[in-house]
Amino acid sequence: MTNEEIRKKIEKEVLSKIKPSEDEQKRVVEAVKKLIDLVKFHAEIKGVCIKPILVGSVAKGTYMKNPDVDIFMAFPVSMSREELERYGLEIGRAVLGGGEERYAEHPYVHGKFEGFEVDLVPCYALETTTELMSAVDRTPFHTEYVKKHLPNEKIDDVLLLKRFLKGLGIYGAEAEVQGFSGYLCELFIIKFGSFSNVIENCRRFRKGTKLSIDKIDERYYSRFTDPLIFIDPVDIKRNVASPVSLDNFLIFTYACERYYETPKLEFFYPKEKKMSREELDRKIKQRGTRIVAITTGKPNIVADNLFSQLRRAEKCIRNVLEENGFKPIRSKYFAENDIMLIFELECWEYSNAKKHHGPEYGKGNSESFIKKWKMSEKALSKPYIENGIWTVEISREYRTAEELLKRKLPELSLGKNIVEEVKKKYNIVGIENIPYEILAKFYEGQFRWEDC
Amino acid sequence: MTNEEIRKKIEKEVLSKIKPSEDEQKRVVEAVKKLIDLVKFHAEIKGVCIKPILVGSVAKGTYMKNPDVDIFMAFPVSMSREELERYGLEIGRAVLGGGEERYAEHPYVHGKFEGFEVDLVPCYALETTTELMSAVDRTPFHTEYVKKHLPNEKIDDVLLLKRFLKGLGIYGAEAEVQGFSGYLCELFIIKFGSFSNVIENCRRFRKGTKLSIDKIDERYYSRFTDPLIFIDPVDIKRNVASPVSLDNFLIFTYACERYYETPKLEFFYPKEKKMSREELDRKIKQRGTRIVAITTGKPNIVADNLFSQLRRAEKCIRNVLEENGFKPIRSKYFAENDIMLIFELECWEYSNAKKHHGPEYGKGNSESFIKKWKMSEKALSKPYIENGIWTVEISREYRTAEELLKRKLPELSLGKNIVEEVKKKYNIVGIENIPYEILAKFYEGQFRWEDC
Repeated sequence: MTNEEIRKKIEKEVLSKIKPSEDEQKRVVEAVKKLIDLVKFHAEIKGVCIKPILVGSVAKGTYMKNPDVDIFMAFPVSMSREELERYGLEIGRAVLGGGEERYAEHPYVHGKFEGFEVDLVPCYALETTTELMSAVDRTPFHTEYVKKHLPNEKIDDVLLLKRFLKGLGIYGAEAEVQGFSGYLCELFIIKFGSFSNVIENCRRFRKGTKLSIDKIDERYYSRFTDPLIFIDPVDIKRNVASPVSLDNFLIFTYACERYYETPKLEFFYPKEKKMSREELDRKIKQRGTRIVAITTGKPNIVADNLFSQLRRAEKCIRNVLEENGFKPIRSKYFAENDIMLIFELECWEYSNAKKHHGPEYGKGNSESFIKKWKMSEKALSKPYIENGIWTVEISREYRTAEELLKRKLPELSLGKNIVEEVKKKYNIVGIENIPYEILAKFYEGQFRWEDC
Repeated sequence: MTNEEIRKKIEKEVLSKIKPSEDEQKRVVEAVKKLIDLVKFHAEIKGVCIKPILVGSVAKGTYMKNPDVDIFMAFPVSMSREELERYGLEIGRAVLGGGEERYAEHPYVHGKFEGFEVDLVPCYALETTTELMSAVDRTPFHTEYVKKHLPNEKIDDVLLLKRFLKGLGIYGAEAEVQGFSGYLCELFIIKFGSFSNVIENCRRFRKGTKLSIDKIDERYYSRFTDPLIFIDPVDIKRNVASPVSLDNFLIFTYACERYYETPKLEFFYPKEKKMSREELDRKIKQRGTRIVAITTGKPNIVADNLFSQLRRAEKCIRNVLEENGFKPIRSKYFAENDIMLIFELECWEYSNAKKHHGPEYGKGNSESFIKKWKMSEKALSKPYIENGIWTVEISREYRTAEELLKRKLPELSLGKNIVEEVKKKYNIVGIENIPYEILAKFYEGQFRWEDC
């Protein structure tokens, strides 16, 4: 078989797994119809005039099996923000028979309805994107745009691209993933015409790639320094790809190249590599590293906020470890019941004695240097001259990475809510306190399609 | 008492300890007379015409108790170098009844005569320093110069300066010491007039100090980059202070300053600080360092050559330790029956895994990087992308300083004769294999006059 034929076969198989059945499609349509009627009904009871709008992948027909149903409730712009939020929640709860209050830019209600996960989100009814009042207000315009520009026969291509990115672990614009949104997938297909064309084009992409559907002025690109720029056709001031991190962008590019060269099903459905405990132990022994981990409570904040704070915390702790000579090799964060930040170190212990250099002989304030260190309890030697520089040997503040973190952690700017948790309680633990499942994830490879 | 009075008292006490008694002076004069007669006698028997010249501190009267007697045997310039060496050794052996052959620039004979250590050194009889044939030929001119320019009443000042430098551990121009020669001490007194004046002037000295007896043209200084320059009055192209290392020069300067401020006998006669074993053990524990030492055979070469090679070896090993992350705090060399180079480390162990960075994604030869490390047995991970850079985790070549030295030592340029010894046999040992006396010296302070 040629690569072309192999790809066709694989993609057919993938579609058979992800496309909703006709029956499911029918059930979705019915559920949506009922939800819209219910929203209207409850709005009328409350005497508010709102327009329910089906948005997201269900509206666009680009949904996979078990889709989320997203319905926006467009309120008149004359209504105050407070009223919008209050009525939005009340109607949402009434429709879903309870549900759960969630929060993005507005509070909204999430619940189950006839087997589907449903979001009922209040927004303002706007005519154009120039008068946007919040990011959610843009969604109906995205939905309209895709419905208008994506031919029905290209829907399968969108589904393939979404599954491809899911397989790579980089589908989703949320802070936890830093990947490609569904809307971005649709724009890719509108731009390049098919999944195959996306693969063939994107494999050549490099940092700083600039894309748009319609030809636009260069200066609109120059606002952005993101690794990938895809100008939003409904809002030229926005980069749809801004959530995509550099490494995720390059993983995508590299995956396109590899899939182009050697297509295989594993790109869409990577084999779950279950590392046995023995294998993991062997790996850890062979690496001969030491692990230091921080556990603290999980702050009760929305996921996007949590994960961007976790990223900040990880970077901040890496820096302080690095600055003190405990070079981290790998690091990752995990948010389950608690949060855990894990650092694998190249070096974990230093002598107590370290050299401390003062001024050059005869320059600067040699006398105060000598006086200070002759008296100091931290001094392990008298000041002496080395290569013409006043030098003294002193006690190190932190001999081990554990000591360093124990003392420094509460002062670090880890992200507001994580700092609060740390102030309440935190632990510095070693590898023996990390569950096997987390360690296995810690040592996962980056390219999921690779045999391991 | 004023400082002035204290200094006078101390210096009087020092002189009473170092000045040879009248009886000893008489014995020296007699021994010299006999030696000269014997040299002449044996030369005559061999039929060579040589002129014995008393040189060094005995000739100049600037000697302390138990002086070495240095007699040069000036051969006619018409004689070949081979003949000079042969006759020189023969006559020397005959005079001293055996003796020991030593080697500086010429071979010469060292032995005992009437209780004194004696060197009998062949040289050429020259009229001026412009026709010097070797460094030893300069010595008689130095002797003449000092005899002419140093008033008798200044001899005590020379003795005080010599003892002061001995007390600091920086008396002697040999490679082992890298300090101040006796001739340099005499020039200091001729230049500044007295020991007190030397102290008062030198305490203000800084790196790059330029001195000469007679006013000389600036361009003669500019030949030298030594920390201290003292132009030789008998050979303007020579810096008498060139053997003085930067740190030894600054120790001298600093000692002058401290002695000026707080005179005490310890500058001349530092208290021997016997560190007890318990004290040493406590010190080592408190420093929390690790020691790695190299022992190998002592090459049978002249001391100056040995110590300059040892210095080179120490520097070279420090560099390789440093480059591999095992930061040395202290290091020293010892030459007793064997030679030993000791390094005290700030860090001694790393993980096996280390990061290895390749080209930036899409730049350079990413493909060969990926291919190489996917196949390599040294790889501990698949290649991955980090901050846009191809990265892989690989096995470190040397996890510990011991491993590093074991593998690298034979390739290092340690100095010719040390390399030869290393090729024969060497050991990498830890602190438990270092004798207490050596360890105590290893942890000695730099300023011997300080209370410890």
